[in-house]
Amino acid sequence: MKRTCGNGTLRKENAGQEVTLIGWTARRRNLGSLVFVDLRDRSGICQIVFDETMADSAEVKEIRSEYILQVTGTVQIRKDSNPKMATGDIEVHASSVNIINTADTTPIAVADDTDALEDTRLKYRYLDLRRPVLQKNLMLRHEICMTAREYLDSLGFIEVETPMLGRQTPEGARDYLVPSRIYNGKFWALPQSPQIYKQLLMIAGMEKYFQIARCFRDEDLRSDRQPEFTQIDIEMSFIDEEDIFATVEGLMQKIFKRIKNTDLEQHFQRITWHECMNRFGTDKPDLRFGNELHNISDIFSSTEFKVFHDVLQSGGRVEALKFENAADRYSRKDLDKLQDFAKTFGAKALAYLKYSQNTLSGSVAKVLSEQEKADIISRLALQEDDLVLVVADREKTALSALGGLRIRLAHELDRIPHEQIYKFAWITEFPMFEYSEQEQRYVAAHHPFTAPKEEDVDKLMSDPEHVLSRAYDLVLNGYELLSGSIRIHDQALQEKVFESIGLTMEQAKERFGFFLEAFKYGTPPHGGVGIGLERLSMVLAGTDNIRDVVAFPTTNSSMDLMSESPNTVDKKLLDILGIEISKKDSE
Amino acid sequence: MKRTCGNGTLRKENAGQEVTLIGWTARRRNLGSLVFVDLRDRSGICQIVFDETMADSAEVKEIRSEYILQVTGTVQIRKDSNPKMATGDIEVHASSVNIINTADTTPIAVADDTDALEDTRLKYRYLDLRRPVLQKNLMLRHEICMTAREYLDSLGFIEVETPMLGRQTPEGARDYLVPSRIYNGKFWALPQSPQIYKQLLMIAGMEKYFQIARCFRDEDLRSDRQPEFTQIDIEMSFIDEEDIFATVEGLMQKIFKRIKNTDLEQHFQRITWHECMNRFGTDKPDLRFGNELHNISDIFSSTEFKVFHDVLQSGGRVEALKFENAADRYSRKDLDKLQDFAKTFGAKALAYLKYSQNTLSGSVAKVLSEQEKADIISRLALQEDDLVLVVADREKTALSALGGLRIRLAHELDRIPHEQIYKFAWITEFPMFEYSEQEQRYVAAHHPFTAPKEEDVDKLMSDPEHVLSRAYDLVLNGYELLSGSIRIHDQALQEKVFESIGLTMEQAKERFGFFLEAFKYGTPPHGGVGIGLERLSMVLAGTDNIRDVVAFPTTNSSMDLMSESPNTVDKKLLDILGIEISKKDSE
Repeated sequence: MKRTCGNGTLRKENAGQEVTLIGWTARRRNLGSLVFVDLRDRSGICQIVFDETMADSAEVKEIRSEYILQVTGTVQIRKDSNPKMATGDIEVHASSVNIINTADTTPIAVADDTDALEDTRLKYRYLDLRRPVLQKNLMLRHEICMTAREYLDSLGFIEVETPMLGRQTPEGARDYLVPSRIYNGKFWALPQSPQIYKQLLMIAGMEKYFQIARCFRDEDLRSDRQPEFTQIDIEMSFIDEEDIFATVEGLMQKIFKRIKNTDLEQHFQRITWHECMNRFGTDKPDLRFGNELHNISDIFSSTEFKVFHDVLQSGGRVEALKFENAADRYSRKDLDKLQDFAKTFGAKALAYLKYSQNTLSGSVAKVLSEQEKADIISRLALQEDDLVLVVADREKTALSALGGLRIRLAHELDRIPHEQIYKFAWITEFPMFEYSEQEQRYVAAHHPFTAPKEEDVDKLMSDPEHVLSRAYDLVLNGYELLSGSIRIHDQALQEKVFESIGLTMEQAKERFGFFLEAFKYGTPPHGGVGIGLERLSMVLAGTDNIRDVVAFPTTNSSMDLMSESPNTVDKKLLDILGIEISKKDSE
Repeated sequence: MKRTCGNGTLRKENAGQEVTLIGWTARRRNLGSLVFVDLRDRSGICQIVFDETMADSAEVKEIRSEYILQVTGTVQIRKDSNPKMATGDIEVHASSVNIINTADTTPIAVADDTDALEDTRLKYRYLDLRRPVLQKNLMLRHEICMTAREYLDSLGFIEVETPMLGRQTPEGARDYLVPSRIYNGKFWALPQSPQIYKQLLMIAGMEKYFQIARCFRDEDLRSDRQPEFTQIDIEMSFIDEEDIFATVEGLMQKIFKRIKNTDLEQHFQRITWHECMNRFGTDKPDLRFGNELHNISDIFSSTEFKVFHDVLQSGGRVEALKFENAADRYSRKDLDKLQDFAKTFGAKALAYLKYSQNTLSGSVAKVLSEQEKADIISRLALQEDDLVLVVADREKTALSALGGLRIRLAHELDRIPHEQIYKFAWITEFPMFEYSEQEQRYVAAHHPFTAPKEEDVDKLMSDPEHVLSRAYDLVLNGYELLSGSIRIHDQALQEKVFESIGLTMEQAKERFGFFLEAFKYGTPPHGGVGIGLERLSMVLAGTDNIRDVVAFPTTNSSMDLMSESPNTVDKKLLDILGIEISKKDSE
């Protein structure tokens, strides 16, 4: 059962060699008295030729798609080379063949180009995974992890496995629960991240920790999430943001060098959250193209257009987005669609202006004064065929609606470079708190152990809205690759933060219990990040389907179509666990 | 917050250097006008000296155990070096100190030697983990994993993450279940091993897979198990036992070289299961000492001693175990204890003989004939003060009782070498089936996808008891480090195996469903192993407590004393999951 080399490794230089190959029959064709077989293994595909003497043998006649063959033969230069195949210059003329195993007709064809429905591909995932593109993605993911581990190990980080069976967290509405057999009526929770454990490891003096950790989040239908996902999780002691940024930048440089042979810039640009929102209307900007937002509120400080006037009076703003050479491309109907899209962000309306022949036309052109229009033209430096989208609304709404439109138009207008460009940026100085309409109080925007910026500490009680935190994200081409923060290590400061979100220490202890206790016994300054492995793999694989980088994914609704799980279980098992299915659902 | 080096790295050669250290206060002593502090970080402990000028400072007066300090000072040779400390030749004379954080008095002392109760240590695991011995164990575990990954990667293995949320298996009484929120009344199971997924990856053509995989088994109280554990999981296609043995031997050589700087033998010895049971009474023999078992049945072929006669008549055997220089050490009372121990293996009795002054004495000496005694003396080559233990019983019982006694006496008599000796052995040719008294039929001894030995295939129906399988274990010093097998890849053979354990294909499909379906589409010959990471770490760390190699372990009864989990959860969460706690348990 041995082979001499991988099928995908043979080249011109191997001509004349006798080789033994093993693999799956990707394709079988009869051509006159010859039989051609494309033999596929993990390394690639090689064309095998069975000549007249062999083509009539029982074995060769029997060969069908996905049969596993062992073939011995001689490498020869092809007459007509196939430039699309890595091995396209050669073929192997078989002298013997051994059928290692047969195969029934497969429900999906095994080829990179497939028109099979995704549900069918998921049901027969083991066949789908034979497609070279998916095999490459799994290898790529392996290489990312190997690179990360080697790099972090070389810096003195230690990988520590933290428990999967953990304590349910107070905010854990998204926790998967696991009933206990020994303690009936009690439950574990699967971790949404190793956050608490990694901070405990810092308290335990491990100093530099990492883990490529499985995490779980029980979310509703979302196409870019899976119930389980993996995080390159890092935590360090006795450090500040600079150490973390340098560590992560080094990690990305190693990964992109190995996978893409690309040299990333030594330091990634940094943008504060505030600046980022104002320029891009999102905290995960795609920096591969421009089209930044413009706050044009000042142009309308004494406008007679009632809509803008009222918005500005109530503290809102007028925000504009320009796309070059786009006015002509967007019909009234197209613009109606954009308006519907803007409304999904809560915007009440979307105005537009088109600039052509030195004139502004469009939905609000008639209601604006000549001065206002002139100001817009000069502020946005408008040129022939420019399209301007305008949202007048509350600041947050105006920014996020135009931020969404910025991405949508860039796609529709094909303004995102096709070549592989990687635009990283650190987003820093996130707000420490956000006001929860639901709870009628400020809540932690990140998590309540995130440190505030030192200079904002005295605003914790007086002006929580304007306290900035030491949280940061790393974004890449519009994806949030990671988020992290410097944590609080000072007990007095921790109490202040709890107070500012309306928690007494007693309430905090009730919620965070043993974790707060741990902080008393000599906690080092520390911080870290959690990097989304699937996101990173998707960017590197050039796919926007998360299932392309997961070996055995579920559907968007968390169903594994291959094993048909979750499934019903024997009532006896539930009895042992001391639980039963609620009547309303089971009857 | 920076340091110039690790505390444990300073040596004589550093004398005269100015250094900045960071760490936890392991100990503080006042000596006259001087203050000594042992400062501990992950790299070790260094002695700091505060002289008269500093000892009176507010900072130095404040220092207590586990305070975190940053100290700058000069390395000086100690007058009285401390050979017990790696840094015992030097001390750092402080010129400045900065208290990075304070600490309350810790509930347990942070030192390698501890008399704290294990429950207290588990409750304050983050303090327990500051003990250098545990930090070393976590680093060792990390190094094992790094070595394994680098080695397997270099051989072309690809690490693939398989799902944690999987399908409940028919034999899964030991599965942890996870209720589904989206599909109320349905459940996932956490994997006992990635067995099915790794075989699917072979069917998917990944050819060489590995994963350092978290596994789960909901077992009753056992001191050497944890509810979650980790397996170095390997599977390969187009291979036989020789490839797997070579791969694993290479892996062990790399690991033992890196961790212990020990060169293991190139090939590990192989012992068939049958031979192993006969020589050691167990399938996980400790080969660091001799004292093999002796089948002495033939000596009693015409015995007049009724007990032995009856046992032999009914197909049992008389089995003996000799320990040198032990007769005098075992009193009648000690031997009674051994008899009680033998009974825990199901043995009806334990006989003993002592050899002294050319005479056999002991429990059965009087009832044996002179010839029988002479035969025993010569067969076992008895010498002065030898102790012989004899069990006459059913084969399995006699072997396992003496196998257990062999280990017990070796410990009691201190016959296991103290130096680090690593005796590996492959145990091969396990029986394919074992008879289940409970189910009144033969069941698969390993799992029903294990391949039988080729020459035994035709005995599958006629003589299942004597069919040997292609399963194997690797044992080390009495521990089972791994088990694995060559799997069936031929559908006709698979059907035969199901038939021999009384399953029709329909029943088999009901139980193994999609997995059997997958086998139809071109399954390669394949096989693999799962290596117990905790076992391997325990051997290398020199501990027999599994909690010494797990960062956050549970008690023997699966309780995490630190986070107090499992715990009760809000009824609202259970409502969302569509489950409730059974009344009998909750009321």
